[in-house]
Amino acid sequence: MALENGNQKVEVGSSCSKPIRNYNWVLIVFRVFAFMATAAATIVMGLNKETKTIVVATVGSTPLTATLTAKFQDTPAFVFFVIANGIATIHNLVMIAADICGKRLDYKGLRLAIIAILDMMTVALVAGGVNAAVYMAELGKNGNSHARWNKICDKFGKFCDHGGGAIIASFGGLLFMLIISVMSILKLLKPKSNCAVSASLVP
Amino acid sequence: MALENGNQKVEVGSSCSKPIRNYNWVLIVFRVFAFMATAAATIVMGLNKETKTIVVATVGSTPLTATLTAKFQDTPAFVFFVIANGIATIHNLVMIAADICGKRLDYKGLRLAIIAILDMMTVALVAGGVNAAVYMAELGKNGNSHARWNKICDKFGKFCDHGGGAIIASFGGLLFMLIISVMSILKLLKPKSNCAVSASLVP
Repeated sequence: MALENGNQKVEVGSSCSKPIRNYNWVLIVFRVFAFMATAAATIVMGLNKETKTIVVATVGSTPLTATLTAKFQDTPAFVFFVIANGIATIHNLVMIAADICGKRLDYKGLRLAIIAILDMMTVALVAGGVNAAVYMAELGKNGNSHARWNKICDKFGKFCDHGGGAIIASFGGLLFMLIISVMSILKLLKPKSNCAVSASLVP
Repeated sequence: MALENGNQKVEVGSSCSKPIRNYNWVLIVFRVFAFMATAAATIVMGLNKETKTIVVATVGSTPLTATLTAKFQDTPAFVFFVIANGIATIHNLVMIAADICGKRLDYKGLRLAIIAILDMMTVALVAGGVNAAVYMAELGKNGNSHARWNKICDKFGKFCDHGGGAIIASFGGLLFMLIISVMSILKLLKPKSNCAVSASLVP
C-alpha cells in the first residue's frame, strides 16, 4: 500500500505471509505414523490372551491338568496401557481430520496453542502408559527375587512376545508424539514472526 | 513517531508492550511448588529402605531368624522413578534460576520455545516415572493372584508407606508440571500478539 502526498510517498507494507504449507504435511505424516503405532499397540495388547493346559499331577497313569489363562485385563498396568494408547490413537485421528478438513475452525486465535497443549498431554499419557507396562513386562520376564515374584514368561511365552511387541509399537508412538509436540510448539512461533507490518518513507 | 509532510502527518506507532510481569511470578511460584514436590519424591523414595528380622523356624527353643531388607534399588521401576523425579527437580531449579537471573539469555528468539519444549519433555518424564512406580506399588500392596505374585506390604509396611508418600508427592509434581507446561505454551502467544506495528495517516 502506498500513500502518496506531494513529492513524498509513504510505503506501508505488510509482509504477513501464510504459514508454510510444506511444514504442515510433514506434521500430518508424523501424525499418521503416531496413529499407526499407537493403534497397533492398542490392538495387539487388547487382544493379548494365552491359554495353556498344564499337567499339575499324575494319579496312577491319569494326568491331572489345569487350564490357565494369561490376559492383559489381569494386570492393571496393561489396562492403563490400552486406554492410554487408545486415547492417543483417537487424538491423532481427530488432529489429522482437523488439519485436513477444519482449517477454518478457530477460537480467539488459540487453535494452534490448543493443539500444542493437547499434544503435550497426549505425550504425557503415552509416556505414562508405556512406562507402566514396560516395568510390569520386565517383571514378568525376569521376576524379582527380592519380592519373591517369579517370572511368568517361561510359561506364557506367546503372551509375553505379544506384550513386548505392543510395548515396542507404543515406544515408537511416543517418539513420534514427542516430535509432533515439538513441531506443534515451534508452529506457534512461525506464523507470527513472518507477520510484521512495516512502514517506510520513500522520498 | 510522527512524519510531518506539508499539511499531512503520518503516525507510525508501535504498541509493542513488554510481556506481562504478573504472569511471570505466578509461573515461578508454580515452578517452586513443582520443584518441592519432585524433590520430596526423589528424597523419600531414594532413602526408602526397611530391614526386618523374621523368625523362619524354631529348633528346640531357639528361633532361627532371617533378616530381610526391602530397598527401592531392588525394583527397576522405583529406580526410574528416582531418576525421573531427580531430573525434573534439576530442570525446575535451572528454569527458576534462568527466569530470575538470565533474562538476557536468548538464542535467535527461541528462548521461550526451548523452555516450552523442555517443560513438555519433563512432563513426559515425570508421567513415565510416576506411572511405572504406582503400578508396581499397587502390585506390592494387593499382589496379583493370576501371576501368583504375593503382596509384600503386609510384611514391609513402612517401606510401602514411604513409597506411597513419594508417589503422591510425584503426582503433585506432575500436576504442577502440567500447569507449567500449559503456561509455557501460552506464553509463546502473549508477547507477540501485544507487539503490533501500526501506521496511520493523520490529516
